[in-house]
Amino acid sequence: MSIRPTKDVLTDALLDITARHGLERVSVRQVAAAAGVAIGTVQHYFPTKDAMLDAAFGEVVRRIRARVSNLALGPDVRRNLTTVLRELLPLDEERTTEVRVQVAFAARAATSPSLAAVQAGILAEVSESIAEALALAGRGDDTPEELRRKARIALAAVDGLALHAVSSGSWLDAAALTDAVDQLIDALLPTRGVSGSRATSPAP
Amino acid sequence: MSIRPTKDVLTDALLDITARHGLERVSVRQVAAAAGVAIGTVQHYFPTKDAMLDAAFGEVVRRIRARVSNLALGPDVRRNLTTVLRELLPLDEERTTEVRVQVAFAARAATSPSLAAVQAGILAEVSESIAEALALAGRGDDTPEELRRKARIALAAVDGLALHAVSSGSWLDAAALTDAVDQLIDALLPTRGVSGSRATSPAP
Repeated sequence: MSIRPTKDVLTDALLDITARHGLERVSVRQVAAAAGVAIGTVQHYFPTKDAMLDAAFGEVVRRIRARVSNLALGPDVRRNLTTVLRELLPLDEERTTEVRVQVAFAARAATSPSLAAVQAGILAEVSESIAEALALAGRGDDTPEELRRKARIALAAVDGLALHAVSSGSWLDAAALTDAVDQLIDALLPTRGVSGSRATSPAP
Repeated sequence: MSIRPTKDVLTDALLDITARHGLERVSVRQVAAAAGVAIGTVQHYFPTKDAMLDAAFGEVVRRIRARVSNLALGPDVRRNLTTVLRELLPLDEERTTEVRVQVAFAARAATSPSLAAVQAGILAEVSESIAEALALAGRGDDTPEELRRKARIALAAVDGLALHAVSSGSWLDAAALTDAVDQLIDALLPTRGVSGSRATSPAP
């Protein structure tokens, strides 16, 4: 028996199945089989599909936070910003699964007020963090309200890119995604003099 | 009896149910009841859930195209661009339903190669149209490749805004959405008083 909390084991199983088949097709039976527990155990922790989605989404948010807090950030705040935003893009298998969960969560939140409230809280929090990063990386001539607006656009663009990438096969590859994020930040934060940030940005 | 093609009647019923409950919860039985036909009839036209989603998505794309082609556009190409992009935002009930269908379609396309191919085709087509509009609205100093990159960002940002709006309750209202699109275009197409330093291409 695992010494990890059962709910964590179930959530991991949930994300593994999601990676392979998509969250929409996840069932209580599959999660129980993958986690090696009884169906009743899954139903105890996830009494509804919304509860399952909520757990998966919460785990995705936790993982992204953990990765961001472990990033090696340097003195170039603009580069730090693009580095952090890349954690939201489906640039590897792990992040692709996360994006799928986020998209499924968003789709369901459109008709579930309780999930919508969770989504609004996360969007507000991430958007606020981006606004702070934009303030650090910019020239200091944006008002707090302008920074908030730019942050909303940046978060929407990054989530939109992630959505397009996971849903369109090969229409957007990793290079196109990272390039888009670099260009996005350049567009939102025009630099003084030469546009050095892109010229010196390395490949992902 | 309606003289409209049965598939159109079914698709309308599908979108009506989606508006109320979300596409994920749509069933063959509900569509049959709403359209006043036998379950077997729905199954004939929509033998799989993917077929149903494909029809709903196709209808949404058709509706958006029809609205865009009916827009009264003026001599200000930049304003025309933002006017067209607003057709993709959930600014009223009709567009909110459309966005929900698009999000559900995208979520499913993440695990369905055939739906992903449809999605890639639409994204490429819309992105190309936006690139053409950006070319008309800009100062003429972007290369075709830069225009394509900017168009991908613009489409991602608009779809991301739409995704955030429908999934987060009142986090983004109509004013915030339209404001964001205006700011986005300003950021991607800088105008007066800005030197070439804002350009993103270092290559001659």
